[in-house]
Parts: sequence; C-alpha cells; structure tokens
Amino acid sequence: MPQDQKTPEVIKQDGKAVPFDKGKLRQSLKQAHAPDDVVAEIVTEIQKASDGEITTSTIYQLAYKKLKEHRKAYAAQYSLRESLADLGPTGYPFESFVARIFAAKGFDTEVGVIVQGSCIDHEVDVVAINEDRLAFVEAKFHNERSIKSSVQTPLYVRARFDDIAKNNHGRFADGERDVAYWVVTNTKFSDQAKDYGECTGLEMIGWDYPDDQSLEDLITETSLQPVTALTTLNNSHKQELTKQDVVLCKNLRNQEDKLKALGFTDEQVTEVMDEVNHLCHV
Amino acid sequence: MPQDQKTPEVIKQDGKAVPFDKGKLRQSLKQAHAPDDVVAEIVTEIQKASDGEITTSTIYQLAYKKLKEHRKAYAAQYSLRESLADLGPTGYPFESFVARIFAAKGFDTEVGVIVQGSCIDHEVDVVAINEDRLAFVEAKFHNERSIKSSVQTPLYVRARFDDIAKNNHGRFADGERDVAYWVVTNTKFSDQAKDYGECTGLEMIGWDYPDDQSLEDLITETSLQPVTALTTLNNSHKQELTKQDVVLCKNLRNQEDKLKALGFTDEQVTEVMDEVNHLCHV
Repeated sequence: MPQDQKTPEVIKQDGKAVPFDKGKLRQSLKQAHAPDDVVAEIVTEIQKASDGEITTSTIYQLAYKKLKEHRKAYAAQYSLRESLADLGPTGYPFESFVARIFAAKGFDTEVGVIVQGSCIDHEVDVVAINEDRLAFVEAKFHNERSIKSSVQTPLYVRARFDDIAKNNHGRFADGERDVAYWVVTNTKFSDQAKDYGECTGLEMIGWDYPDDQSLEDLITETSLQPVTALTTLNNSHKQELTKQDVVLCKNLRNQEDKLKALGFTDEQVTEVMDEVNHLCHV
Repeated sequence: MPQDQKTPEVIKQDGKAVPFDKGKLRQSLKQAHAPDDVVAEIVTEIQKASDGEITTSTIYQLAYKKLKEHRKAYAAQYSLRESLADLGPTGYPFESFVARIFAAKGFDTEVGVIVQGSCIDHEVDVVAINEDRLAFVEAKFHNERSIKSSVQTPLYVRARFDDIAKNNHGRFADGERDVAYWVVTNTKFSDQAKDYGECTGLEMIGWDYPDDQSLEDLITETSLQPVTALTTLNNSHKQELTKQDVVLCKNLRNQEDKLKALGFTDEQVTEVMDEVNHLCHV
C-alpha cells in the first residue's frame, strides 16, 4: 500500500484520535438499511474527503447527506440517535416515547405516575403492566447525546425503587406479578453505571446497551422511530408535533390535518408521508 | 400610617413577590455582626430605596455596600453564602472545605477516598474518623446558590452508602465505631430531599438546615469562613488561592508570601490581614 493511502485518523468529540474504522462505518450505514452499493460509495467518498484526519461529526454529516440523496428514509434511520436527542429540551417526550416501546411489547402503560414509597412519594416516569409483569421505569433523557449516563443515575434509581418496594409497590401492590425495575436512557452508560446496575438487579437499556436488546435494537424491532428522525420536517415542526404528543413517526399516519395545520402544502404532505412509509413501515 | 408608607414588595429570584420583611433583613445583618446602629441605618435606607418594590438582589447589594463602608469583615460575613458558591467552578474546594469542618470537630479526614462497595468502587468525598465514629460524607456543591438540592441527591447517596455498608465499609471495616452517612451541600434542600434523607437515616446539612446546626451555623461556630468571603481579594485572587488549597480565611494567617506572589503591595497585604483578623478571629 502506498504511503499516501494510510488509514486516516478520526478525531472524536472529546478530542481523542482513533484510526478510521471502515467496518464500523459500513455497519452503521447498513443499519440505516442502505443497499450495498450505496454503502460502498459512501465509505470511499469519506476516505477521499479525509485529508489524513477527519472528525466524527464530518463523517456523520457527509454520510447523512449522501444517504439523503439516495433515499430520505435512509438518512432518517441513520440519524436515529440524534433524533432521540431532538425530542428535548424537556424529558417528557422521551418518557412518552419509552412508554410506547413498552406498549409495543404488550404492556399497558402510564406516564408520570406518583407512587407512594416507604419514606416519600416518587414520580415514576413510566409504569408498565401486563398479566404477569409490573415494570417501574426511569426514563433518563439527555439533550447532549455524547454525555454518558454516570453511575449516579442507577444509584438514585435503585434507592427510589427500594423505597417503593419497601412500601409493597404502593397502589400497584398485588403480590402476583413479577416486578422489575428499569432504567432507559437515550445515551450510553459509563462502565461503572453498567456494573452497578447489573450487580444490583436493575434492567438497563442504553443507546447501545445491552448488546442483544439495546435501545437502537428495540426501536428498529418495533418500528418506533421518533418523529424527530424525519428529514422532511424542520426543527420547529418537530417541536410543535412532540408538544402535541406526536412522538413517533408512525403517529403521523393519517394525520395529514396536523401537517396542514403547520402550513404544509398537499405536495409537501405527500413528501412527508412518503418518508413516513419508508421509515416506519409496519 | 399614611398610604405612601405601605410595606414595599420584594421580588424574589423566581419572580414571586412577597411583602418586605424588616425583621428578616435585620436578622441577617445581625448575623453579619453589624452593630445595632448600622443595622437600623441599613434597614431605613433600603426601605427608602424601594420604590414600592425592590428585588432581593438589590437589597443584597445595597446591604453589602453599606456594611463594607462600615467594616469590610461585616460585608464578608454577610456574603458567606455567596462566597461558598465562589469556591467553584469545580466541587473540589468545597470537598476540602467540608473536610476542614469535620477536622475542626475533632475528626481525622481524607478527601476523595476510593471505598470498595459490594457492587462497585465508590469515590467518597470525605471520610472522617475519630475514636468512636466513622463518617462517610458526600459534599454536594452547586455553583448556583439559588438551586435547591433535589431528592436525587440523598437518593443516590443512600444507594452509594448502602453498597459500601453491604461490603462492611471496605477498608474502613472494624465493627467498633458508630458509622454515619452525611450529605453536606452549600445550597438549600427541597422539602422532599429533607423528608427522604431524614426518613432513611442520612445526616443532612444544607445552607440553612437543620435549624440548630446548619452549614451557616457550623461555619460561624468553627470560624471556618471560606477565603472567598474576603472583600479585599478579587475573583482571580480567590481562584488562584483555592487552587493552592487555601480554602479558609484563616489559612491566610502568616501567609503573606502567598499574597505577595499574587502581586500584593505591603499596604495591600496589611489591608487583607486586617480583614482576616476581623472575619475569622480564633
């Protein structure tokens, strides 16, 4: 291999440099459902664009742009993680989003539930119930996706749920169902957070954790892409829709009126619906 | 009472209005050791300055300025709470500060101690030991003094200390000493935080809590005013000194060289030392 073709350096958000990992990029593009020829084209283009070094954010932007040229829904799927952060600035739409995931798994859900513990009343973000199971869920939202959820999160969640358990689960007491405590976040967990959570019996779901059932996996499996992923909406449209509790892409189905109320023309509505149909096809 | 002398409204930082409370102002000025005639003068002046309404921050600034005119150490004492917030931006000087309070109470102290719990290792801000007692202390620092420490703080502290207790207090295990768990913050606690902390057996110290032994009481009782309270130092002097672990006013005693290294003239050094002698006279 000639000298000038050596592996470029990728500059991460924390300033650290790592060798460019073609396989990792390829995998993230495939997860966006891009076909093989598009994947190959983008990988080559990014290698060319890097002048010895390239930032993760440039890689992301180039890939997003290229995917969008091919099909908007590829770009939408690729930007899933960013689109979760776009559910902010408050944590409420993310709570609602997490509730939809449990609902898709066959649970009845309630959001923002006051549950009486042994010492104090707690606001539990989501309570999910089915015939056999009762789940208390803390939905931990970060606006900044690059923040890692530190060990303080599972620590306070553990104490909160201990206090609830000590009161026999307050108004959810019935002694019949298996009870589980969950922490779901849109970011990654620190290693210490994972160790503590696992050791102390919390169910932990992060963006990329655990390997077999991460938040990304769950979203794709249940076709619950957030409405903020759609490339045909701008930021103020997204905020308006999430405020109206339209947090899922698929919530937009048969909701042409909501788009028209935002000032969309018939043509624009068709464009949005086309992206909806490709992104969250269930 | 004539109409134009009605009680002015005080606008608090959260925008809420409350009637001006002369007694409360008087008390805070007395706590700053201001003599009765100075107190009376300031109360009258602030009533005059209020044009029907006045903000808490204007009251604070007027009182501070007037106290300083009479004696710098009055202003320094009056601004204690602000000066704790000035120990930031990082939490480290506050940890060190909290350790000095335990030291003044006869404990040996260590700061930033790794203690092995049952699930993970924990960094405990301060461990304080004497013959009979062992105290694990979380020092929770906020840059913004008006923030209230929410219930999440005692929750994660409880879980942290539960994990340590489950491992028999790691390297501090000896089974002889009474063990206590403390949370010390420079702000106020929310009511929920107090309820939970008390119920679950944490020792909680906030700026104004508990009534008989608050952080303010402890500082005055032990003459441990932070160096950041001194009015004769500017912000960059304060930051430089706390970086050098000079966190207490009284640490400056016999440290003329440190002030000279910051560029102080002999005259300025005398002025600082005069304030030191009035503020933290032990």
